[in-house]
Amino acid sequence: MAIGAEQPFAISCGDPAGIGPEIICKSWLQRKALGLHPFFVVGNVDDFDGISDIPPIKITEPNEARDAFNHGLPVFDIHHGEKSTLGVPTLDGAQCALHALEVACGLARSGDAGAIITAPVSKSQLYQVGFRYPGQTEFVSERCGIARENAVMMLAGPSLRVIPMTTHICLKDVPNQITQELIKARANTASKAMHRNFGIESPRIAIAGLNPHAGEDGNLGDEEKLVMQPAIDDLRAEGVNITDPLPADTMFHEEARKRYDVALCPYHDQALVPLKTLHFFDGVNMTLGLPIVRTSPDHGTAFNIAGKDVADPRSMIAAIQMAATAVTNRQIYDN
Amino acid sequence: MAIGAEQPFAISCGDPAGIGPEIICKSWLQRKALGLHPFFVVGNVDDFDGISDIPPIKITEPNEARDAFNHGLPVFDIHHGEKSTLGVPTLDGAQCALHALEVACGLARSGDAGAIITAPVSKSQLYQVGFRYPGQTEFVSERCGIARENAVMMLAGPSLRVIPMTTHICLKDVPNQITQELIKARANTASKAMHRNFGIESPRIAIAGLNPHAGEDGNLGDEEKLVMQPAIDDLRAEGVNITDPLPADTMFHEEARKRYDVALCPYHDQALVPLKTLHFFDGVNMTLGLPIVRTSPDHGTAFNIAGKDVADPRSMIAAIQMAATAVTNRQIYDN
Repeated sequence: MAIGAEQPFAISCGDPAGIGPEIICKSWLQRKALGLHPFFVVGNVDDFDGISDIPPIKITEPNEARDAFNHGLPVFDIHHGEKSTLGVPTLDGAQCALHALEVACGLARSGDAGAIITAPVSKSQLYQVGFRYPGQTEFVSERCGIARENAVMMLAGPSLRVIPMTTHICLKDVPNQITQELIKARANTASKAMHRNFGIESPRIAIAGLNPHAGEDGNLGDEEKLVMQPAIDDLRAEGVNITDPLPADTMFHEEARKRYDVALCPYHDQALVPLKTLHFFDGVNMTLGLPIVRTSPDHGTAFNIAGKDVADPRSMIAAIQMAATAVTNRQIYDN
Repeated sequence: MAIGAEQPFAISCGDPAGIGPEIICKSWLQRKALGLHPFFVVGNVDDFDGISDIPPIKITEPNEARDAFNHGLPVFDIHHGEKSTLGVPTLDGAQCALHALEVACGLARSGDAGAIITAPVSKSQLYQVGFRYPGQTEFVSERCGIARENAVMMLAGPSLRVIPMTTHICLKDVPNQITQELIKARANTASKAMHRNFGIESPRIAIAGLNPHAGEDGNLGDEEKLVMQPAIDDLRAEGVNITDPLPADTMFHEEARKRYDVALCPYHDQALVPLKTLHFFDGVNMTLGLPIVRTSPDHGTAFNIAGKDVADPRSMIAAIQMAATAVTNRQIYDN
């Protein structure tokens, strides 16, 4: 079965003691108003009982989800232990989250799910049940047969897409990690991903300099001249539409954002500060470079507010919508 | 004569071939609508002839400015060479900019001007006429008898104030520059400045971690634990209201910004990316730690658009308004 827009999306439940179940239910409630693509949860059906007035509907095959979606929240039940208590993370809950992620990945890989959306997990909890990955992104990429260094995190909101070229490393280690190879790999992945997921024909990539003022012509650092520019020159020769290194501080205001489709930034905060300043409640994490479509809300488990009915579902809804956009475009542009 | 709200403000003309003259004239045109504090330009009177329909009024004493301000743009004429051509920077123009800065500083120091607002200069042009400072900030601080390391750059817009603890240095040099001494000096200056310039009684300071996720409890760098936290503990013992190191990416969205009065950031882009993302057209540069009030628009000379009547005066207007706020508050809180 080919991956396509016909299949419902699989949402891995994430940590069942966090806000995942709540934001999934709140998203389901808006399915008609927003025309959301049908989805089902992979998780413990009991964990979705009593979250709201929504009846969870236990399904045993993904293809039951489309009909069930009209009447309640379809849950592909993984029968995992006891019902969780909201706000109280347990190792059993962490195992449930991991199991759900594994199953959801498999369903997306087999084509039974059109995309995977991953609800938030607690990494510190997962590490206690044998999880050995930096995050869900690396787990998913391995399950897809993609080397983790080729799976690329993009954060996106309605007015900005950013890719941090390095992610969770010390700031002092960043300069040495910014190599010509890394820049070329990230830019190529970004360019291809803009086309196949968003239908942008000749994606415009803006790249931030490592140093303030992009090095100010070599006066504030030479990485722009010695490392970034040669990589950029090579990329252009290959047909990639990318800028010279730009001063990061003037890249992200409203007018500047109109000049590119995606911004590549050398390090975490340079990318995530503007993204979360602008799109704290509706940012989406999408993994580029995978054979499947994988998105995720751009926030954590928020155990402290779980069960209080105050969690904001906008990021989850945006993740479902972005997955649908990508699936639709891939049907056109991957063929 | 005491520095006070009675004295007009001195605006140094900046590079006369840039947009300085235009944004000064556009600010003057809004003086009544916005109730701007009276100001005069320090510069070559000829450079303000023909910028717009505004008649420049040559003055020879600052105290003539208040009356003249009602009828035209008061210019404290420094008789400097030929009239400049907009968009065509010259060494003569750079000398004029430097001379104007020197004179305006002197007038603010003597109390004949209530504050100094510096229009943009071209550093590369200034360096060719003997200027030996990293920027106007260091020049002004020296003229005030303040060591340049104690003059602190703050960037501010209507919804955010930020202080980069290091400024124009290579990214790779940042981690070693973030010392306990620097953090304490910057936090103390920030706290005092929030009080005397903005009337905030117990200023709330937020401080960003150096590393992503503020080091994630030591997993992504140890500077937060080894350097930042001890400095923060000392500051609190001295009564400074400051947070623990915060993840930079979640500090700058609308709700987060309400929790503090000023954000301290270890490096340039961490501070200036959110500030310019939010306030590209109305950001103000204010120098903290000086005996005089000094503000500046947060942009450059923009030679490429000089003379085209498209320059945006909002940043200059905001700089004049912020100077007035600071002068008013200092009259209350410095006594």
